[in-house]
Amino acid sequence: MQVMIDICIVPLGVGVSVSDYVAACQRVLQDAGLKHQMHAYGTNVEGDWDQVMAAVKRCHEVVHAMGAPRITTSMRMGTRTDREQSMDDKVRSVEDKLSPV
Amino acid sequence: MQVMIDICIVPLGVGVSVSDYVAACQRVLQDAGLKHQMHAYGTNVEGDWDQVMAAVKRCHEVVHAMGAPRITTSMRMGTRTDREQSMDDKVRSVEDKLSPV
Amino acid sequence: MQVMIDICIVPLGVGVSVSDYVAACQRVLQDAGLKHQMHAYGTNVEGDWDQVMAAVKRCHEVVHAMGAPRITTSMRMGTRTDREQSMDDKVRSVEDKLSPV
Amino acid sequence: MQVMIDICIVPLGVGVSVSDYVAACQRVLQDAGLKHQMHAYGTNVEGDWDQVMAAVKRCHEVVHAMGAPRITTSMRMGTRTDREQSMDDKVRSVEDKLSPV
Repeated sequence: MQVMIDICIVPLGVGVSVSDYVAACQRVLQDAGLKHQMHAYGTNVEGDWDQVMAAVKRCHEVVHAMGAPRITTSMRMGTRTDREQSMDDKVRSVEDKLSPV
Repeated sequence: MQVMIDICIVPLGVGVSVSDYVAACQRVLQDAGLKHQMHAYGTNVEGDWDQVMAAVKRCHEVVHAMGAPRITTSMRMGTRTDREQSMDDKVRSVEDKLSPV
Repeated sequence: MQVMIDICIVPLGVGVSVSDYVAACQRVLQDAGLKHQMHAYGTNVEGDWDQVMAAVKRCHEVVHAMGAPRITTSMRMGTRTDREQSMDDKVRSVEDKLSPV
Repeated sequence: MQVMIDICIVPLGVGVSVSDYVAACQRVLQDAGLKHQMHAYGTNVEGDWDQVMAAVKRCHEVVHAMGAPRITTSMRMGTRTDREQSMDDKVRSVEDKLSPV
């Protein structure tokens, strides 16, 4: 089963600057070989369910290992059986409807 | 690693009434032997990370098998290394501060 | 327009214990006269859209005033035009399907 | 109070294709003059709290008017009092830490 997620990992107990932790998670996704795209309030990831979820778990482990005693993550997860749809497809299907003729 | 999640599974393409699908997911959590508590806009689940995430995957599989071609789930996931804290502990720690002397 | 939300307000830069801030938000909802129900990973609130959103804004203001320099909130918001449905109705519609005959 | 949000609006009861509704919401944000950036699983918006939340309400109104009887939205909302930070700043602060020397 393929899944597309949008994930925002928030470490608590480490002050207000969280960019070191977000950067570490980007490296986890990179090392996992998963297609991902960061935006200003989270990161899109797509791939096989088990591989994506293993990377999410690894992010929590890495952020704890960096010193964060508590983490709260918010995540959206999308699956579909009717057809395949990539991250690029999703954006394009909306942009096509916004484009001037 | 223990995790506490709050999950809201939304099937698309099956009309506006989603209670059959939510009920099926409650049964998945029950069968998995995981502590869980439904509320009006999601369900709290706590347990071992791998067992909880396996149940989440099973929910997606079951809801697709019931006929939903597309699912979008929103989920919060909390982990902590400083101490154990159950669902009941979390609610009680707030209620203690709200109680009149 | 009526709305039902599920909200989880997370203050950053104030350590790992957030129960004081959650308790303050419960008081905001209470003072606003809005129907609300806390669970282990958030709070359900229902009411008129403008009144609910004014209370959400007030929660952010109060948590900042208590000393949190940064807040990240995750929220679900449900509206429907086909019929009215309360928090209690939503839970009951699922529980009815889980009940043994 | 400035706010940065990430919003994903999901219409129910209109089938599996939601791109028309997402496109309509992009127009609402455009018409509101708010800075926004769509990604594959939501849209970032930044601006004054009241203006942003007015646009979110308008999105729900427009999507209902297009025929969706039910909407469930998931949203992150970030505020901070320590400093100003734009959507571009947030992405850059992480990318700086990922860049090779």
